[in-house]
Amino acid sequence: MLSAREQLEIIKSNVVDLVTPEDLLLKLERSVQTGKPLVIKYGADPSRPDIHLGHVVCLLKMRQFQDLGHEVVFVIGDFTARIGDPTGRSQVRPPLSREEVEENARTYHEQVTKVLDPEKMRVVYNSHWLEPLSLKDLVKIAGKFTVAQMLEREDFQNRYQNGIPIYLHEFLYALMVAYDSVALNCDVEMGGQDQLFNFLVGRDLMREMGQEPQVCLTMPILEGTDGVQKMSKSLGNDIPITDPPQEMFGRVMSIPDNVMSHYFLYLNLATPQEVKSIEERMASGSLNPRDVKLDLATRIVSWLHSPGKAKKARQEFEKVFSRGGMPEEMPEKNVSLPLDLLTFLVDVGLVPTKSEARRLLKQGGIYLDNVPLPYSERPIISTLEDGAILRVGKKRFIRLRLT
Amino acid sequence: MLSAREQLEIIKSNVVDLVTPEDLLLKLERSVQTGKPLVIKYGADPSRPDIHLGHVVCLLKMRQFQDLGHEVVFVIGDFTARIGDPTGRSQVRPPLSREEVEENARTYHEQVTKVLDPEKMRVVYNSHWLEPLSLKDLVKIAGKFTVAQMLEREDFQNRYQNGIPIYLHEFLYALMVAYDSVALNCDVEMGGQDQLFNFLVGRDLMREMGQEPQVCLTMPILEGTDGVQKMSKSLGNDIPITDPPQEMFGRVMSIPDNVMSHYFLYLNLATPQEVKSIEERMASGSLNPRDVKLDLATRIVSWLHSPGKAKKARQEFEKVFSRGGMPEEMPEKNVSLPLDLLTFLVDVGLVPTKSEARRLLKQGGIYLDNVPLPYSERPIISTLEDGAILRVGKKRFIRLRLT
Repeated sequence: MLSAREQLEIIKSNVVDLVTPEDLLLKLERSVQTGKPLVIKYGADPSRPDIHLGHVVCLLKMRQFQDLGHEVVFVIGDFTARIGDPTGRSQVRPPLSREEVEENARTYHEQVTKVLDPEKMRVVYNSHWLEPLSLKDLVKIAGKFTVAQMLEREDFQNRYQNGIPIYLHEFLYALMVAYDSVALNCDVEMGGQDQLFNFLVGRDLMREMGQEPQVCLTMPILEGTDGVQKMSKSLGNDIPITDPPQEMFGRVMSIPDNVMSHYFLYLNLATPQEVKSIEERMASGSLNPRDVKLDLATRIVSWLHSPGKAKKARQEFEKVFSRGGMPEEMPEKNVSLPLDLLTFLVDVGLVPTKSEARRLLKQGGIYLDNVPLPYSERPIISTLEDGAILRVGKKRFIRLRLT
Repeated sequence: MLSAREQLEIIKSNVVDLVTPEDLLLKLERSVQTGKPLVIKYGADPSRPDIHLGHVVCLLKMRQFQDLGHEVVFVIGDFTARIGDPTGRSQVRPPLSREEVEENARTYHEQVTKVLDPEKMRVVYNSHWLEPLSLKDLVKIAGKFTVAQMLEREDFQNRYQNGIPIYLHEFLYALMVAYDSVALNCDVEMGGQDQLFNFLVGRDLMREMGQEPQVCLTMPILEGTDGVQKMSKSLGNDIPITDPPQEMFGRVMSIPDNVMSHYFLYLNLATPQEVKSIEERMASGSLNPRDVKLDLATRIVSWLHSPGKAKKARQEFEKVFSRGGMPEEMPEKNVSLPLDLLTFLVDVGLVPTKSEARRLLKQGGIYLDNVPLPYSERPIISTLEDGAILRVGKKRFIRLRLT
């Protein structure tokens, strides 16, 4: 077992915020002394069970904790997921049933264990302690915080200043997340760097309720394939870890050059020294960014699938896109005519949303057997040859099979 | 039974806000048609069970409703009273036990029935529906309101702008008061004009939850004996309705001339026409304000005690204060030497707070046998004749008995 100081050095790598290193050191020292593992809390939203590379940045840190002997606890936020959007103004967050939550949690577990050691993790549901929480208890918790404190949170502040409604239940949700830490009596809470405020509320609440306050640890946010926004399924810029090798390879190849170093670093695929050297060689022209990206994609697919599959994906990718050809193998889909194009594109996942599909169609970016399809409000395909290839942009294909 | 329009005319008298007269008329019309009384909600704080003339302004309006055949429901806010101050930062609001709440509610009932018809009133405790309210229900209620909406409330706005903390539970309390209306499905909520915002939240919530929204009715705020601030026990400027006749008479006589008309009007002791005539005659010098005030005090004591007691109180008052004499009867108190003056003055109720006592002492306003006592930080009386009279200002006396 490593000493507390050695552990701290490992844990500190890639971290954005650590509040505070001194507190963490004390906890690690006690853990070394008593042999009791630290409890690492990570909040999981069961309404979005798809794990992508953005999450993996955190999962890798959790894996480090596990390898150092500590325990990771996934808190499934089922309490709020089962309420849905209480304002009734949004259609995007329908309440989930208990069964849906459990199914999502199962999927979640299956995915995270690609990175994590299932022996050193626990999954808990926060409804377990939030459901029996009385209004009286909540009032007492609420009395520990002020409105001004809550409005310090960056996103709340922006919304308040811009007149975008903040609903009162959002304040309550922040308190509930904080109370999760109390219920778990956890040692460390970790997540993306946009979560720091929430974690600090938890830290304060634990102290107010007579517990040892949790250490707050945040990880950098990985940009999505657009290279700008946070990776997120709802933005359609994500690289899901369940992607098949070919697709995953293609998605990594679509990121802009300037974020490659983040991918190398945050996903532990290269040391800071290696990254620095790569950047220097790209800058001097001795290294082609495209080759670097092929290497990055190969490493990611090797890791999440296998070296063999990565090699095959790379060959296929190079064949198609380097030589302008068509891939030998491509996904197929059975269709029947007439075919509602926009709905179909979204259903098979070629385009994230109908409005995006409409935009692409307008730009002439959707092809049937290499012929751009004409724009219309609600395009319907009524004739089609069996085996025709529907293509979106340069890199997304599907073969249509008439049924 | 009066028609709906006739009832509306009576109810509108003295009212500050009525949201909306149209809604109230519809409710009254239905009540006339069906014979079903309207339910009038009034929130009572069981931690402050002392009723003073400021409350009476509302009680009189409730009595009007009763006389028109409607039902008054006192909502005892025991749920929050039993929590106390959850911030733990204030000593002024200790949590009340169930027994204390019930005792206060009993006292409350005893006092309000000096004005109200006990047959047409009901007392309910809001813990009855708030205790079983689940966190999930609360989240749904909270989701109906925004932070910005809450901060529209004048006192919240001022505090937020001046950096004075607003604790989150205060938002929750506003929601709970609103939920009280839902639980009662009341027709009208009424109270002081500073309550309008809270009532409107209740109105909104009822609508959101599919009920007919309550009508919000507010009454003017009666100034305390200082003539400036809202009458309030904690400010020490109140006239409790349980005051003995002599004390009540004296307190009314201590109000400034310029608020007399409010007392006449809001306490239904004179019609607007009478008040106007009194004011004109005072302005022209044909009526002495002092005589008007003696008349006001006499009317109040006659009403809340009896005409006989009012007459006696007036005679006694005139004897003492008009002729500079001392009253025949005065309260007595046993004391032992040395006597801590400030503590004593507060304990016997001659002065509301020590800092006020200190202020009066500085001004030379505290006398022992007609000699002003000298100022010191912590004045101690070490010699004293049995039967000496301790006097504060012109009108507050106590006879000291050495033990």
